[in-house]
Amino acid sequence: MDLKSAIRNVQDFPKKGIGFKDITTLLKDPRAFDEAVKAMSDRFLSERIDTVVGIESRGFIFGGAVAVALDAGFVPARKPGKLPSVTLKETYDLEYGTDAVEIHKDAIEKGSRVLVVDDLLATGGTAAAVIRLVRRTGGTLVGAAFLIELDFLGGRKKLEGVPIHVLIHFRDE
Amino acid sequence: MDLKSAIRNVQDFPKKGIGFKDITTLLKDPRAFDEAVKAMSDRFLSERIDTVVGIESRGFIFGGAVAVALDAGFVPARKPGKLPSVTLKETYDLEYGTDAVEIHKDAIEKGSRVLVVDDLLATGGTAAAVIRLVRRTGGTLVGAAFLIELDFLGGRKKLEGVPIHVLIHFRDE
Repeated sequence: MDLKSAIRNVQDFPKKGIGFKDITTLLKDPRAFDEAVKAMSDRFLSERIDTVVGIESRGFIFGGAVAVALDAGFVPARKPGKLPSVTLKETYDLEYGTDAVEIHKDAIEKGSRVLVVDDLLATGGTAAAVIRLVRRTGGTLVGAAFLIELDFLGGRKKLEGVPIHVLIHFRDE
Repeated sequence: MDLKSAIRNVQDFPKKGIGFKDITTLLKDPRAFDEAVKAMSDRFLSERIDTVVGIESRGFIFGGAVAVALDAGFVPARKPGKLPSVTLKETYDLEYGTDAVEIHKDAIEKGSRVLVVDDLLATGGTAAAVIRLVRRTGGTLVGAAFLIELDFLGGRKKLEGVPIHVLIHFRDE
């Protein structure tokens, strides 16, 4: 099945000139969603993943399902102030200003084999920050899986040395 | 397995006097998370669910996995302004003020059999608003599944007539 054809382009969202890749048309199609989750998981089946880290919010949709498929636990990486217990925090640069992401300090056991999951690899800032968090907990980063990569933004450069698994590439803007 | 023992109580979050039910300790345990997803899904296996609607953000973690388990599609119910295409919106009352939730207008086909999934049934305001959205799209609401119900808040009253499936009850504050 051609997963790329299940993605809808929404022009001028969230602002004028941006062509937003809308994954909700893929999610609502049972066959496409199931195939995407299987394809994200299968690449890491032999890697004995202990923990899947999903990135808020759309990364939660795939992360939970991938964790079940891999018999792994699920750990949410969330926006600041959302996690109730003691957290670690990493900031990252945006086009204008900075943002941050948090993980529970006790979420990942030392030496646990970790897969990071999100829907989109764009500039790579969030994913790189989450990977720094995983390493600070003492987890072993095994790889990162994304439904979509926007190749023209070059976010992959920020994840150097990390095995990356991507299902759908957009090469041009 | 006793799922309730996998929930952590965090006192004074998000504000003084509140005992927050932290589900991240359940999520990170592979056996507990898998059992919770199975228990949420199994109750509706014979109901031929077409679409699982997950409520942002923690409802996405369970919703995606339950959709895969039921061979259903997944539809996100999101906070205002997050969905890129044409939406329907419902507002609901909070202790102070109001909040709102949106769904894509074309997300659910007329007559589709829909299960609503979230982590927590508290005052029931969000879930009731999402159920109104499902009905406005023409979907057939089959039921709602929650990991936790805070029985003492009485949110169940707002969902009258809806088959509700709950895994963990907290009877007292």
